[in-house]
Amino acid sequence: MSDFKQIYDALIKFRNERDWEQFHNPKDLSLAISIEASELLELFLWKKAEDANIEKIKDELADVFSFAFLLADKYKLDVKEIVLDKISKNAIKYPVEKAKGNAKKYNEL
Amino acid sequence: MSDFKQIYDALIKFRNERDWEQFHNPKDLSLAISIEASELLELFLWKKAEDANIEKIKDELADVFSFAFLLADKYKLDVKEIVLDKISKNAIKYPVEKAKGNAKKYNEL
Amino acid sequence: MSDFKQIYDALIKFRNERDWEQFHNPKDLSLAISIEASELLELFLWKKAEDANIEKIKDELADVFSFAFLLADKYKLDVKEIVLDKISKNAIKYPVEKAKGNAKKYNEL
Amino acid sequence: MSDFKQIYDALIKFRNERDWEQFHNPKDLSLAISIEASELLELFLWKKAEDANIEKIKDELADVFSFAFLLADKYKLDVKEIVLDKISKNAIKYPVEKAKGNAKKYNEL
Repeated sequence: MSDFKQIYDALIKFRNERDWEQFHNPKDLSLAISIEASELLELFLWKKAEDANIEKIKDELADVFSFAFLLADKYKLDVKEIVLDKISKNAIKYPVEKAKGNAKKYNEL
Repeated sequence: MSDFKQIYDALIKFRNERDWEQFHNPKDLSLAISIEASELLELFLWKKAEDANIEKIKDELADVFSFAFLLADKYKLDVKEIVLDKISKNAIKYPVEKAKGNAKKYNEL
Repeated sequence: MSDFKQIYDALIKFRNERDWEQFHNPKDLSLAISIEASELLELFLWKKAEDANIEKIKDELADVFSFAFLLADKYKLDVKEIVLDKISKNAIKYPVEKAKGNAKKYNEL
Repeated sequence: MSDFKQIYDALIKFRNERDWEQFHNPKDLSLAISIEASELLELFLWKKAEDANIEKIKDELADVFSFAFLLADKYKLDVKEIVLDKISKNAIKYPVEKAKGNAKKYNEL
C-alpha cells in the first residue's frame, strides 16, 4: 500500500468514526488549514527559527497536512499531480536566469 | 520511486536551480505555508463552498503542500509518520463516544 | 466628530454604495481579516523586518483595520472598550513579575 | 484625550511594564496580527456565523486590534489617515457601477 493511501485511510477512518464528514465542506476545510498553519506559525513568534520546539512543530505540521489531505480527498485531487503541475507553472513565473539568488515575487522580477 | 520521493525531488530541484535554500529557514517556510493557506482561503471569501473555482483551488492547495513538504524536508520529518502519530494523539483528545457527530473543540467536549 | 466615527462613516458609505452588506456576515468578515493579515505578513516573507516596503505596509495594515472595524460595527462593539478589557485580562495572564523580559506564552510562564 | 490616545497609552504601558518592546519588531508584530486573526477565525470553524460565541469574539478581535495598533505605532502611522487613504484607492479599484451588488475581486470585475 502506498504512503498516500495509508495516510488517507487513517484520516478517513478517524473522521468517519466521529461522523465528522458533515462538517468537512471545502470552505471550512480551508479555514482549518489556515488555522493550523497559524498554530504552526505561532511556534516561531517572537523567536529565531532555531529556537522553536521541534516536537510541537511535528504536531502542528501534521495538522496542516491532515486537513490539506482531507481537502485534496474532497475534490479527488492527486497530490503528486497538482504539486508537479504547480512546479511547472512556477518554472515559467520564476525563470532561473531572473529568479536565481533573489527572493522577489514574480511580479517584481 | 515513491510518490513522496518524486515530490521532494521536484521541489528541491526547483529550489536549488534558483539558489533559494538560503531563504528557506523554518520560520519563513512557516510564514509561506500560512500565506499560501490564506490564498487558498481567499478563493472561498464571500462565497458558498460550491462556488469556488476548482482550478484555482488546485494551484493554491499545491502551494500549501509544497511549502509544507519543504518544511518537513528541512527537519527530515517523515510525513506519513507525523500524520499517523498525530491521529493517535487526536484519538485520545477526541474519544469517539464524546466527539461523535459534534464539532466541538476537545477542551469543550 | 471623533476619529472612530469618521472611519466608520467612510467604511460604511463605501460598503453601502456597492451594496456589499449582503456579503458581510461575521464569518466572512473574519475570513477577510485573516486574509488581509496574511497579505501584510507576505510583505515580510524571506526578509528582515527592516527591508519591508512601508508604503505597502500602510495599505495592507489599513485593510486589516478596515475589516476589523466592519466586524466591530457588525456586533456594535466599542473598540476602545474591548481593547481595554482585554488588556485587563492579559494583565492577569501575564503578571509583570513573571512575564517581564521574556516572550513565553502564558501557559508556559 | 482621544479614544486612539487612550488605546495607545494602555497598550504601550502594558508592553513597557513587561519589557516586551525588544520582541516587537514589525515582522513579528505582523505574525502576531495574523495569528490572532486566525484565533478569531477559529471561533467560526465548522459553524454558521450566528453560532459563534460573542464573548470570545470580543477577546480575539481585541487582540487583532491590539497588535494592529502596536504595528501602526511602530511606524508612527495615523490609523484614520491610512484607512481613509485606502478607501480612496479602493474606490478606484472598485468603481460603484462595476462593483455594485457583486463580490468579485477587482481583477475579475
